[in-house]
This record gives sequence, C-alpha cells and structure tokens, in this order.
Amino acid sequence: MLKEIYLKPMGLLVDLYQITMACGYWKSGRSDDEAVFNLFYRTTPFNSNFALCCGLEYIVDYLKNFQFEDDDIEYLASLACANGAPLFERGFLDYLKTMSICFDIDAVEEGRLVFPYEPILRVKGKLIQCQLFETALLNMINFQTLIATKSVRVCLAARGEPVLEFGLRRAPGIDGALSASRAAYIGGCAATSNVMAGKLFDIPVRGTHAHSWVMSFASEEESFEAYAEAMPNNCVFLVDTYDTIEGVKRAIEVGKKLHAKGYSMAGIRLDSGNLTDLSIRARKLLDNAGFEKALIFASNDLDEFAVSELKEKGAVINIWGIGTRLVTGYDHPSLGGVYKLAAVRKAKGKWEYCLKLSEERIKISTPGIQQVRRFFKNNVMVADGIYDINQECNKNMTIIAIDDPLKKFKASEGEYETEDMLKPIFRHGKCVYDCPSIHDIRKRTLNEMKIINQKTLKLKDSDSYFVGLEESLNHLKEQLVKKKQT
Amino acid sequence: MLKEIYLKPMGLLVDLYQITMACGYWKSGRSDDEAVFNLFYRTTPFNSNFALCCGLEYIVDYLKNFQFEDDDIEYLASLACANGAPLFERGFLDYLKTMSICFDIDAVEEGRLVFPYEPILRVKGKLIQCQLFETALLNMINFQTLIATKSVRVCLAARGEPVLEFGLRRAPGIDGALSASRAAYIGGCAATSNVMAGKLFDIPVRGTHAHSWVMSFASEEESFEAYAEAMPNNCVFLVDTYDTIEGVKRAIEVGKKLHAKGYSMAGIRLDSGNLTDLSIRARKLLDNAGFEKALIFASNDLDEFAVSELKEKGAVINIWGIGTRLVTGYDHPSLGGVYKLAAVRKAKGKWEYCLKLSEERIKISTPGIQQVRRFFKNNVMVADGIYDINQECNKNMTIIAIDDPLKKFKASEGEYETEDMLKPIFRHGKCVYDCPSIHDIRKRTLNEMKIINQKTLKLKDSDSYFVGLEESLNHLKEQLVKKKQT
Repeated sequence: MLKEIYLKPMGLLVDLYQITMACGYWKSGRSDDEAVFNLFYRTTPFNSNFALCCGLEYIVDYLKNFQFEDDDIEYLASLACANGAPLFERGFLDYLKTMSICFDIDAVEEGRLVFPYEPILRVKGKLIQCQLFETALLNMINFQTLIATKSVRVCLAARGEPVLEFGLRRAPGIDGALSASRAAYIGGCAATSNVMAGKLFDIPVRGTHAHSWVMSFASEEESFEAYAEAMPNNCVFLVDTYDTIEGVKRAIEVGKKLHAKGYSMAGIRLDSGNLTDLSIRARKLLDNAGFEKALIFASNDLDEFAVSELKEKGAVINIWGIGTRLVTGYDHPSLGGVYKLAAVRKAKGKWEYCLKLSEERIKISTPGIQQVRRFFKNNVMVADGIYDINQECNKNMTIIAIDDPLKKFKASEGEYETEDMLKPIFRHGKCVYDCPSIHDIRKRTLNEMKIINQKTLKLKDSDSYFVGLEESLNHLKEQLVKKKQT
Repeated sequence: MLKEIYLKPMGLLVDLYQITMACGYWKSGRSDDEAVFNLFYRTTPFNSNFALCCGLEYIVDYLKNFQFEDDDIEYLASLACANGAPLFERGFLDYLKTMSICFDIDAVEEGRLVFPYEPILRVKGKLIQCQLFETALLNMINFQTLIATKSVRVCLAARGEPVLEFGLRRAPGIDGALSASRAAYIGGCAATSNVMAGKLFDIPVRGTHAHSWVMSFASEEESFEAYAEAMPNNCVFLVDTYDTIEGVKRAIEVGKKLHAKGYSMAGIRLDSGNLTDLSIRARKLLDNAGFEKALIFASNDLDEFAVSELKEKGAVINIWGIGTRLVTGYDHPSLGGVYKLAAVRKAKGKWEYCLKLSEERIKISTPGIQQVRRFFKNNVMVADGIYDINQECNKNMTIIAIDDPLKKFKASEGEYETEDMLKPIFRHGKCVYDCPSIHDIRKRTLNEMKIINQKTLKLKDSDSYFVGLEESLNHLKEQLVKKKQT
C-alpha cells in the first residue's frame, strides 16, 4: 500500500538521533545487545476515555519494504559535525547498508480499543534496530489512531447515520489527507471525498457539486438543471449559494423534472446558516412536494459536539459531511504516543529491566516485556491488565489500577473470558501477520462499540475503563523505582 | 521534489465532486468556458495578524507532473451511482485522459507575508481545469502556510536563538511530517530532526541521543562516557533521565574527559521539569566548571508562548527544540484557505463576475481577476490593496478596508513604492517560474520580518495590517451583491 504511494523505502524516515544512537551502540560493541520497547500513549485525546488503534498496516508495509538505499547512505556520509568532521564513519554506514531486520513485533490489531499506558505495540530484538524504527512507528500510529478515534466519536454523535469524510483540502499534507481518510473509514465513516484515498484503500467515495458550480451559471435554477441533466443519478443539490430556502424550492422544481424523466433526486446539502432551522424547513418543503425519500446532507465545520447539539435541537439531517475537524483532530491535534525502553540484555544474557524516572509518578515508565490481557464478562469488556510475559502470574490475577494503587481488579481463574491483545506481527524480521481488509477492520470497530460499556463511549463525562498493572509487575516496577532513585 | 516522494502523478488527489462537476461542465458543453478562481484565507491562525506563504513549490511540482494514468481512469470507470449506473461515461473519461493543462497561475512567492482575504494564488483558464485542481492546491497551501506561520512565531519568540524542529513522531502522517519540516525551515527554524526531510529538501539535520540511550546502560555516567567515546564531535548530553542536576554534573565530568582528548562538549539538553530553574542552575554549574561555551538545549511540549514565558522568567536556554506544537499547529491546526470562483466567460466571450452571498458580510466572496498591490514607505510595508486587473484604477489609488468600509488608505501617485504580489507561475499550462532554493526562501522570510511594523509581529495583541479593496473593485462588488440579493 505504501509502495503505491511512496517511491522510496523510506529508510531515512527517522529522527537523526536514532542514527547517532545506532552508531553509538555499534561503536560501543553493543550491536548484538537486545532490547524491548513498548509503544503507548498516556492521555486520551478529545477528553475521551479510549482510543481506537489504527496505523498498523502502514507499519507492516513500511517494514516489509525497509532498506537504506545507496543514496541514503551517501547522504548520511555527507553529514558533518560542527567542526567539519564526518558525523558517521564508513564502517557504521556499511553496517547500516547490509543490516536486515530481525526483530519481533507484537501489536494490538487495528480497529480495537486501546487505553492509556498499555502497550499498543511491542518491539523486541536488537537494540540498534528497535531504536532505529522508533520515530516512524510513532508517526504512523500516533496520527492514524488520533483520527480513527475522532472518527469513532463523530460517528457515535451521528447515532448510526452516515458520516462522510470531506477533509482533503484542510488535511495536513498529502499523506496527512490519505492516511486520515483511511483512519476515518476505519473509525466508522461511510465514505470519503478523497478519490486517491478511495482508489488506494478501497474506501467508497462521494461527491456532487460545490458553490462554484452554482456561481458559474447565470442562475441557481439553471445550474441545478444543468447538473440534473449531466448527472441524473447523483443529484444532491447544494442549496445555500444565495438563499437557502429559495435554493430548496429550486431543487424541488428540478427534482420534479428529474422524477418525470424516471430519475430521483437523492437529496440536498446545507453548508451554512442555522442548520437546525434550515433542515426543519427544508424537510417540510421536501415532504410537502412528495420528496419524502430525498435526504438532507449537512456540512460546515462540524465535529462530534456540533452534530450532537444539532440532534438535540431537533435538526432533521440524514447524512453528515465532516472535514477539517475530523482530519486534523482539531481540538486535540496530536496523540502523544511514546516509545519507551523497558528491558535490555547482552547477547544471550539475562534481561535487565529499565525505566525512566519522572517527578510525576504517572510518567514513570513501566519495565518488562509487556502483554495486555483483556477481561470480558458476558462478552462485555471489564478491565485490562498489563503483565510481564516472563513473570509467573498467579492463575488468580490481581490488577492494580495505573492511576491509583488502592484500586484493584481481581480475576479468579475461569471467572472471566480473556484475550491477550498484543498479537504476533513480525517474528525474526519476517511478517507473520495477514493484514485484514479495511472493511474487516471497520467491522471490528463497529463490533468494539457493542462490547464496551456505553458509558465509556459518552462524548462528555464518560466513565473511565479499568487499566492496571498485574501485581507482580507492579511490585517489580516499585522495586526498580527505589533502586534508580538511590 | 514530489516525484522523489510520491510514486504517482496524483491525478486522483481531488475531491470527487471536482470530477463530477468537471463531467457536468463537459456534458453541458462548457468545456471551453473560462474561469478565474482566487485562493485566500479569512482568519489568521494562532490569533496572529499575518501568515507566511508556503507550499508553492509542491504545487509547481504536482502540476508539472500531473496526469491521469490508465489505472486512475479505470478506477473512475468503476465508480457507480446508488442505482448501479456508472457515475462517469466513457466519453468524459477519454476527455480526462487526454486533457493537458493550459491555465495561467499567478501566486505570492513562498516566504512572503500574506493577509486575510487577499489572493495567495489565482488560477485563470478553462473552467473544468480550474475546478479540478481546487482541492490539491488548497491541501498544499493550507498546511504548509499554517506550519510556516507557526514557525515564524516560534522563531520570533526565540528572538534570534536557533529553533530546531523535532516533530516527526507527532506529525500528521508521513508527508505531514515532511512538508511540516520544509515549512518550519522556511519559517525560520534552523534545522530538523527528520533525516528524510533533510535529504529531500536540503535542510540541516540535528540530533544526538534520547533517554533510551541512557536507560540502556547500567548508569547515566557510563552512558555519557560511551556516547562521548562514540560521537566525540556531537556531544549534547540529555541530562534528565533520572535527576537533572546530577545529570548535569555527570555531563560536566564527561565533558572534562572529552576536553582532555581535544574535543569539546557541545552542550546539554533539558527535556522535563522547571526549565527556568534547571537552566539557571545548569548554566552556573557549566560556567563554574569552565564550560562557558557549552550550550543549553531545551525541549518539552514547547510553543511560542512557552518559549516567550521562559525567556521572561530568565531561563538561560540557547537552543530550542520544538516538536508537536509546531508541526501540528497545535492551537489552530488548520488554515481555512478557500478557493472561490470570481469570474467566468464563454469561450472568447466577456468576463462575467461572480460571488457567493453569505449572511455575514465578511464572508461574501470578492469577484474579479484580482491582484494585490503592496505599498511600502521607506522600505516598510504599509498596506495591501486588492484590485481587478481589468479595471481602470486611478493613479491615485484609494483602498477601502475589507473589514470596515469607513477605513480608507489613499496613495497618491509616486507617494509609495509598490509591488504587485501575485507573480506569474504558469502561462498556458507551462511553468514560467524558477522555484528558488529553500535557503533563498528562508532568507526572504527573514527579510520580511524586517520590513513590517514590529507591532504586527507581536505574539499577543498585535496590530493588524491594512488590507482592503481598491475602490472601483469595492464598488463593483457592492453592485453585484445588490443584484444577487434581488
């Protein structure tokens, strides 16, 4: 998929410090040391209590095609320090050129709900390699997970009515638009306006006409008639170029002519003004003229809160066009995903667990080779427990809440159905995962919406979901904090 | 440049409605009708009073390489309406396939200041073609202009101290990151962490090491020593993995050893905690140890306001690393650029001016084949006037403020130096513009900062810059509004 967009294998899609550190590890004789890194986020975007995992297929594609090309190596060779000395020596660059990926990756699948502090993706392998890919992995997961989460929220606000993603013109760059369209569809949107995204990702595409179509004719009526003549099977008339209600009346007139020719007007679109009032008046006009089936589309800087408010006020809108505020994650335009070292070992040595301290308890990283166990009761999600795969867990698991050590979740053996959320994606550098179709991912999203407490999905004042550390991992972390603080 | 990133000529990087409208124009016998569209924005981002133009080189590249490929056409042929009928007929698709660009584009050059309502880019040519490219042009200008503007603001806050762009991991997608790095450099940043952006755009790259480097060693001291051994010419030690002040002391010890070997420690980086307090204490420790030239780098969710506040509080920071809040335009993550039809004519006919009405006066679009004249006095920008190139303007020009018809700017002949801001970029579909190097664009930005009233550049409560319509264009617009309202 990425190969169809990008020409290059993107070996250089890294922060420079990943390469200087790789060089450092290489020069320190640590080329065969191993490491475990966990990718997770701390704060849910949009004051939400969940995020929807998205971006894994990009990562799979990127890693499958990864390599440093000759001109990448030459570029690195050209970099100099402040004093003019080459930044990298040739031996290291030769090492990079012939390096082949040999790590393991486990990850939460796209279209699954994920929560703060739990690993979305875990990389285990050579320290140098785990380090090198940090930035690209974060870039792909952070943005797509952000937009998929926003999409879920907008679709929840629309309560089952179709949401169309219209964001290309305001999206952050070309791939910002393409990957936003992908994430928006995975989050539940029904279609996109972005034709390139439609073709690349097999997303349904939608679109009819803009104000400029109307303005380019001598009159609005003439413009609707010309459009109906040209595209009789795809008639959604944009009615607010001059006067919205007059526009609706003109659309109805043209709709009647369409009907007489055996076609039907699909609907009208409102793009400005008081959408509640206008939609109610438009609906009455349409119904009175016999166009009960004509749909009312609405757009105009909408987001989940605007959609929700319109519904509460009684707006009669059937299809929602959402652009800017969806594809930028407007009110929280970045998921703060991080990628933290959790363990290292010398070649064939013993794992040494590590963490980063912080003045804020909640920002101290968690050590260990982590897995996330999700507990279900009657097919409803109840709690997630982060545990270390190398530690003996009791069959009766106790999970200590990440944000409050006094809150605990206890699961006796057999009391809950469980699922380990991180699935094998790469083993020894080979992809062992078949990426599902985008449609199957989207179905999974829709299923997730059914198996979680609906109070966790509320747009405002939602309930948080229980996430914690299994108690032996929690104990291990506390011991390590004490050790590092002394 | 884009060809080095993207594999495809991106013919489908459009909203579907651009193609349905193109089909409509084609079917309505309007294939040879001509149009003028203006691209502009209404609201400055970040409560600023200016934006810095950016994105034109992407557009030039995109249009030079534009074509619909066979598989694009086949994809369009596969699209169906709700009733199963093909959305596009073969004759139209054949037209698209053989279409070659033949319009004129005039645009403000990158690295120039632009203001609300004035055209940044004007397209004049066949209606179908002008319409088709709307979305891609907006996508490229909107995002890059947004980020370049943010970059200007951060650099202004840093008052000449270097700002490094560190945003790849949190940037919106792959090209969201690449084009943000480009825009950030054009806006004044000194370098990027994104190596791919460095290579593609010839931007200086910077980077040393992360917390994970430190965590991967048994002790912080050992980690600094290993780094100094491996990269002695590129030593900026990140000192806050465990205890910041202890980290500074360890960096100093390693710095002494570096010095003894004939190298010098470039500096330290602070990435958490109270940056004011920590930087003051670190500076003293460094100075007392004889490291007066070692620089203090700071990062941690900074933006122009945080930088400004740190400076006011007396933080002793020399180099600023800015990531998330720069590359997402965090507090205003979209420039609302629009692309409005301003005139149409039948093949070889007379121009008919058009506009879109709105309940808000300020949102009524401006008709005409617009040009922007910038007035200077003693090499300082004084006002911008939007005029119609087909109208007779008096040599004494009167400009009526866009937001207040009572405010006027009068320029007698010869009283001001002037520059027309829209420069020829394409003529009859051929590029007539040599894109300057990114370094020359960045120099232009720095020059713009000198020739504008400094009160317009203030981060808060800045003065607005005078932008208005030349009075005959203003009159023409008023007449047209009256006509459309009746």
